[in-house]
Amino acid sequence: MEEIIPVERLTKFTKNIFLSIGCSESDADLATNVLIKADLRGIDSHGVARLIGYVRLWETDRVNPKPEIKIVHETPSTAVVDGDKGLGLVVAPKAMEIAMEKADKVGTGWVSVKNSNHFGIAGYHAMMGLERDMIGMAMTNASPLVAPTFATERMLGTNPIAVSIPTKNQPPFVADLATTTAANGKLEILQRKDVEAPLGWVQKKDGSASTNPNELKDGGALLPLGGDREHGSHKGYALGSIVDIFSAVFSGANYGPWAPPFVSFLPLPENPVGEGLGHFVGAMRIDAWRPADEFKSHMDNWISRFRETKAIEGKKVLIPGDPEREFEAKRIKEGIPLNSKVVADLQELAEKFGVKL
Amino acid sequence: MEEIIPVERLTKFTKNIFLSIGCSESDADLATNVLIKADLRGIDSHGVARLIGYVRLWETDRVNPKPEIKIVHETPSTAVVDGDKGLGLVVAPKAMEIAMEKADKVGTGWVSVKNSNHFGIAGYHAMMGLERDMIGMAMTNASPLVAPTFATERMLGTNPIAVSIPTKNQPPFVADLATTTAANGKLEILQRKDVEAPLGWVQKKDGSASTNPNELKDGGALLPLGGDREHGSHKGYALGSIVDIFSAVFSGANYGPWAPPFVSFLPLPENPVGEGLGHFVGAMRIDAWRPADEFKSHMDNWISRFRETKAIEGKKVLIPGDPEREFEAKRIKEGIPLNSKVVADLQELAEKFGVKL
Repeated sequence: MEEIIPVERLTKFTKNIFLSIGCSESDADLATNVLIKADLRGIDSHGVARLIGYVRLWETDRVNPKPEIKIVHETPSTAVVDGDKGLGLVVAPKAMEIAMEKADKVGTGWVSVKNSNHFGIAGYHAMMGLERDMIGMAMTNASPLVAPTFATERMLGTNPIAVSIPTKNQPPFVADLATTTAANGKLEILQRKDVEAPLGWVQKKDGSASTNPNELKDGGALLPLGGDREHGSHKGYALGSIVDIFSAVFSGANYGPWAPPFVSFLPLPENPVGEGLGHFVGAMRIDAWRPADEFKSHMDNWISRFRETKAIEGKKVLIPGDPEREFEAKRIKEGIPLNSKVVADLQELAEKFGVKL
Repeated sequence: MEEIIPVERLTKFTKNIFLSIGCSESDADLATNVLIKADLRGIDSHGVARLIGYVRLWETDRVNPKPEIKIVHETPSTAVVDGDKGLGLVVAPKAMEIAMEKADKVGTGWVSVKNSNHFGIAGYHAMMGLERDMIGMAMTNASPLVAPTFATERMLGTNPIAVSIPTKNQPPFVADLATTTAANGKLEILQRKDVEAPLGWVQKKDGSASTNPNELKDGGALLPLGGDREHGSHKGYALGSIVDIFSAVFSGANYGPWAPPFVSFLPLPENPVGEGLGHFVGAMRIDAWRPADEFKSHMDNWISRFRETKAIEGKKVLIPGDPEREFEAKRIKEGIPLNSKVVADLQELAEKFGVKL
């Protein structure tokens, strides 16, 4: 069922695929790093499992492997970037570089991106700030799969928010969360296991409650964080909306139900309101707030105090980023487990491009 | 049980109380506007119901009615503000003014505040941006009442996030949400009605599930948005943590369990890690992103499309800010309904200061 592939081998293969579709050497490296980072951190749904999806977008001319990424509007602390239909995996890190350059100069930098594609895990882009003593933030809109509170129609993507905060001796604080009760990847795991979903994850086509993990295939929808009105789904809906507006209304990308689908077999929505998909990234120098060492010492103290929180018998309180870091430590050593469906997809790519897996 | 007081009369009374504790004329106006705005918008828990609480903080020397609010650290796009123990109702709007001045110059402005107190509704401060064609954001940390996922200990406040976005002909987008399943005010309503809470709002002292709205009095805790791990409470916990860090680690205020309680009868936590309570506010010029008119037209389009979302039979999809705006329209005309407990508190204040209610 499952095959474990050493990180180096999977990295080399992935890079070769990106090179095969026409990416430059450095763009292929960048895109590969973003995908492999997802697999390392245990977010399997956003790693090489999506490689074939990116290739299919390229085949249908929806991804430009040689984008000319440029700033089209700016102020000292902001920029709008046109991704030129590039891979989001490449466009978003470049947007984050621009945000960090601006933060270097004026304390913070904020970049909204249009004309892009799926950017992988939000956490990767946010974490770029860590090496430069900056708080990093990243958001993106995505294919509409989520019904707002009381809706029967899919209007928003799982629209993640990632925030990464530097520390001194503690590992960094890294939150990376879909603004839905559960991300689509979690649902796919249940589908494979043929297990019911908890109430509050999905709804039926008519808006009624469901525990069927295949509900989306029958016209159902994912639910905003909170699940239903009584449990605060209007808050998850508001957060997903904020991500959509910051990513796409700010930049001139497609928002809400106009966001282009990731899967190439679905047609692009008619009468687009912008260009491609949108992202929003930001960087704040920690010394824009306090001397860097003082800032980091207090972050360490925040983390150690929260780690010591009195917990339910047999449980412990985690810090955002803990589970992903544990995955990463293990998988760097042991390799990345891929299920047979993903391995078959990679073999299909290997044959198509004559590249060895 | 309930008394309806005309807005003008309640405004005059509230201002007189703030003047009585030594606020300047303009600070008394500002603090009053923030409180009355909460009542107008239907967020009764954060309006004049809290007036007696602010007075008690002043009586125990935890509120300085004549604060010297000043910038203690800054870059072109950021500032840390020392609130000098002032009312948060006064400190936060002044911090927002600083953020907007910075946004005027460099596109965005971000201010983290220390040494402050409870700042009323986050939405008020975020909405200050509307008149100046700016996106406004506001967050604050607060008395620890919330248990992180798997915890039995209260570590975070209800830590709200507010985002306000200008529009053209549509009413503005105004999201203002506690990062918990339900705000404490919602629980107080159930206590008064003697009705059980839905599962996922509170937990018992030992961390087990509860529907008792009085659970906090017995050592229980509020739950992060999501309710439990299976429904994404780790996301609500991460969001509440981000608010805590942006508000208090950035600025040098007290974070996590060290956040000072709002109620004056509880002692301040020992070994404080900072000064007072913290806030975080931000402003972004909409023309830092796109020409203002183009930005607003797309926001109008976003809102009208979401309003038309196909909905469950008998329901409609709302835009963040809709319910509060309906309350405001009604209460401006009809007056503000106050329950007997709140009226009694106001009468106590009236007698104490010789001010007519």
